[in-house]
Amino acid sequence: MNTRKTAKKRNFSDVESETITRKNVGGGWVEAQNSKGECGLVPEDYIQAGTAACPDAYRHESTNNTNTQVANGNNPWSPGGGYPSEPAGGWNTQGHPQTQHNAGEEDDDGEWDEEWDDSRSTGGDGDTPVDEDGGATGHNLHSHRKRTLSKFPFSKTPNPELYLLAKLPPKGKDRLPIYIADVGPVWLYPESPLDCVVADPKKGSKLYGLKSYIEYQVTPNTTSRPVNHRYKHFDWLYERLLEKFGSAVPIPSLPDKQVTGRFEEEFIKMRMERLQGWMCRMCRHPVISRSEVFQLFLTYNDEKEWKTGKRKAEKDECVGPLIFSTIDPEAPELDSVEVEQRCELFSKFTKSMDDGVKDLLNVGNIHWKRCTGPLPKEYQKIGKAFQNLSSVFNTSGYQGETTLTDALTAAGKTYEEIAQIVAEQPKKDLHFLMETNQEYKGLLGSFHDTVAGHKAAIDKVKEADKMMLAGKITTQDKVTMGKRTSIMSYSLQAEMNHFHSNRIYDYNRVMQHYLEEQIRFYETIADKLKLALSQFTTL
Amino acid sequence: MNTRKTAKKRNFSDVESETITRKNVGGGWVEAQNSKGECGLVPEDYIQAGTAACPDAYRHESTNNTNTQVANGNNPWSPGGGYPSEPAGGWNTQGHPQTQHNAGEEDDDGEWDEEWDDSRSTGGDGDTPVDEDGGATGHNLHSHRKRTLSKFPFSKTPNPELYLLAKLPPKGKDRLPIYIADVGPVWLYPESPLDCVVADPKKGSKLYGLKSYIEYQVTPNTTSRPVNHRYKHFDWLYERLLEKFGSAVPIPSLPDKQVTGRFEEEFIKMRMERLQGWMCRMCRHPVISRSEVFQLFLTYNDEKEWKTGKRKAEKDECVGPLIFSTIDPEAPELDSVEVEQRCELFSKFTKSMDDGVKDLLNVGNIHWKRCTGPLPKEYQKIGKAFQNLSSVFNTSGYQGETTLTDALTAAGKTYEEIAQIVAEQPKKDLHFLMETNQEYKGLLGSFHDTVAGHKAAIDKVKEADKMMLAGKITTQDKVTMGKRTSIMSYSLQAEMNHFHSNRIYDYNRVMQHYLEEQIRFYETIADKLKLALSQFTTL
Repeated sequence: MNTRKTAKKRNFSDVESETITRKNVGGGWVEAQNSKGECGLVPEDYIQAGTAACPDAYRHESTNNTNTQVANGNNPWSPGGGYPSEPAGGWNTQGHPQTQHNAGEEDDDGEWDEEWDDSRSTGGDGDTPVDEDGGATGHNLHSHRKRTLSKFPFSKTPNPELYLLAKLPPKGKDRLPIYIADVGPVWLYPESPLDCVVADPKKGSKLYGLKSYIEYQVTPNTTSRPVNHRYKHFDWLYERLLEKFGSAVPIPSLPDKQVTGRFEEEFIKMRMERLQGWMCRMCRHPVISRSEVFQLFLTYNDEKEWKTGKRKAEKDECVGPLIFSTIDPEAPELDSVEVEQRCELFSKFTKSMDDGVKDLLNVGNIHWKRCTGPLPKEYQKIGKAFQNLSSVFNTSGYQGETTLTDALTAAGKTYEEIAQIVAEQPKKDLHFLMETNQEYKGLLGSFHDTVAGHKAAIDKVKEADKMMLAGKITTQDKVTMGKRTSIMSYSLQAEMNHFHSNRIYDYNRVMQHYLEEQIRFYETIADKLKLALSQFTTL
Repeated sequence: MNTRKTAKKRNFSDVESETITRKNVGGGWVEAQNSKGECGLVPEDYIQAGTAACPDAYRHESTNNTNTQVANGNNPWSPGGGYPSEPAGGWNTQGHPQTQHNAGEEDDDGEWDEEWDDSRSTGGDGDTPVDEDGGATGHNLHSHRKRTLSKFPFSKTPNPELYLLAKLPPKGKDRLPIYIADVGPVWLYPESPLDCVVADPKKGSKLYGLKSYIEYQVTPNTTSRPVNHRYKHFDWLYERLLEKFGSAVPIPSLPDKQVTGRFEEEFIKMRMERLQGWMCRMCRHPVISRSEVFQLFLTYNDEKEWKTGKRKAEKDECVGPLIFSTIDPEAPELDSVEVEQRCELFSKFTKSMDDGVKDLLNVGNIHWKRCTGPLPKEYQKIGKAFQNLSSVFNTSGYQGETTLTDALTAAGKTYEEIAQIVAEQPKKDLHFLMETNQEYKGLLGSFHDTVAGHKAAIDKVKEADKMMLAGKITTQDKVTMGKRTSIMSYSLQAEMNHFHSNRIYDYNRVMQHYLEEQIRFYETIADKLKLALSQFTTL
């Protein structure tokens, strides 16, 4: 238990152990300085991986900087302008998007089609798995494969009832311990936290340039060795995690797919930033981060290892509610009434937080629009009016006017600069506040199924006596159901506590960044105005 | 000439000789600190009068401060909200408003009626002038009186033609010298500049409370002894100055009359501020400030002296273009072609400046509305959203949440404070920028007639040869016309130079004040945000 607490503490304070010049930002970003003294944002994982001087991270950041010009005040991340509550390229908060892979639907910009091209073009190793090559093509086969892979029929909507009485496979070596901390049940947190950097997006092409795609470089802090992944690989990972851990661990959705403009620089940057945020959150999760499939994704050595690992993961039978069979709480069976109350409280909390987050997103969206639209235009007009007056004054023919007209021109230009600063500011602060809240909106949404599954189990246990009387289950079954529900309760509470501790950290961090940037914003303007002021004189 | 230059220099730099804590503001205001360490605006004349600790000035300012709460974001100076280009209680830029006193029109809230009450209630001194008591009553008599008072028929629209050939009265002792400085012809500026404070508005009543009025205390720096004046007295002064000096010196209009709400605190404060601005500008004018009628207004000792002086001023025969007969340029006759070019340049300049000023007023008006309307509402909403999230977090039941929720609440309150600061800011800076530009809009308007009168004289001189051939004038007449037109040209150029030097000083001063307040605004917000930031922690 001590081990866990220490590990946990380290997990949430690791960024602080970095130098002071590195400031925490939302979404897995850290502000740092490179060898040239340039300040920029780098993923915090990146710094932990000990490669802060890597030019790639700064190349990414410098892309960020050169793109901060808001020509017409629109948020470039959303085609409609402003920061939409449901951005076109934003977070999917509709729950698990696996249904998007249904037959006949356009998925992932056709990238799964390309996957087959991948397999065939690199499939000369003779290792091409049968279930990926079974005669069907494209979406249909993929969807089919996914359906047949699940050995338990509750992989989509969590339905843990069957788990409660299922004949479980013998316990394997991959156990998931749960400890009791001050805050209640918690997962075992790793000694050293896992992190990774998603960076350096590169355009690749296949079929003699007919098909092109974007590949991201993913570098875990454990190996510091980058691996390449396309969006569809992240999506594959998401599906595996959802299938394997989804009953116990709410898996937040990946950033949305986008059909048009997916090669545009801004979209790529935004997707990368959000993939980074998603990976960061997965790395932070003690269950996900140590899982075989996640480790495969981060550390495969070559194409062969990747393919083999993929096949193995897809064949994994310990999926759906079976994950609970691998969880080992260290403590005695829980009181179901108390657990129910806690779950009730948590449900209410997530509902309220969802409302609060949506409120903040709405307000932020309106503010984004004003700060990038009418407000800078007004500052620009003020600037023009001062400069205009200066030009008029220059025509007076009166001597000794130059100091005033120069000062008025400078003041005018200052207000034009302020217009630019105002327009660019939301990308520097509000953006991260919005992103964090968008992420939490998604997280809160994905919690719904996990809580519902747990509630279904509790309800089943309540029916146990009736079922026993009806001869449907034995006394031993009832005991088993109680024990297994207790395990589910431990798991859910560990998740709740994981969520809360992350939430506290994330909101502290993003608020710090927001306020720091706001302060810098106001101070920058004050400094510019001081310069402008110094040119006027009434002596 | 040396004398003038020294005097002039002193005239435009006197405020700087005050302590550093006193900052120049537009419209005759200075920022100063009282004995309690409170900062506030006081009329600069006030400080020069050596009575900076007088509680009245601060009473005035403290009224200002307590009124800075903008409940609904409206500019309280204008009923329609925002800062209107033509505010209801704003500057009259339609030229000379003396026609407002025509028979049958409501004038000055009926205050001239009260004047008659004044005369009768205090008229026991037997000194009541015949022309004020001649059988008619109210407006009719007043209008009549005014018309018959003007001995020359060009008192309204400047028509200097008659002056060019008029038989002038013998030169009196009140001469108006003009010198040639580096910038060209200039008036003789006084050794020590005249200034005054308009303060301490008090409600008075007559006829057993049936009639009430507001009386302002006017304190010149020369005597430091206050005299009381009602708006109608300022208006009387304005009319006298217009009548006497209007052909040579553009007299800016008084702040507009207002029929409704003239006893409301905000209106009184605004009118006082603008009367102060008008008086300050009159005090600064070397011709106006030393005139008998202006000195009477500032320094009369008792009611009797005031009445006698009034009657004398109204009977003054040296009015209209005759004022030019009192002007003594020290230099030889001017080249009319060069003068015409200068006047053309000045006309173009005033036109362009009028456009520039109107542009700035429009932009400022829009900005005023945004800063007092939608913008603070948004900051308020951001503040509420943070506090709302804090309340939600408080219900989590998770321990160790207090630091975050306290910090979020504090950040939320900070944004609510920022909302207030943003809403109040325009009154602290934009207001003075707007007032100065409104004043200049009026000044530029009042220059039009002066320039037109001069142009009419020049045109007349051009016709001189034709008139001579037609036997309408003699050769001597032609010489006289040329000399007198040259005097008018000197006068106009002295006025142009007076205008330019004032303009340069005024715009430097108001821009300094605007930028200083803007800097304070941004720094105040940054400081508040720093406090808010300090409460967040990711340790």
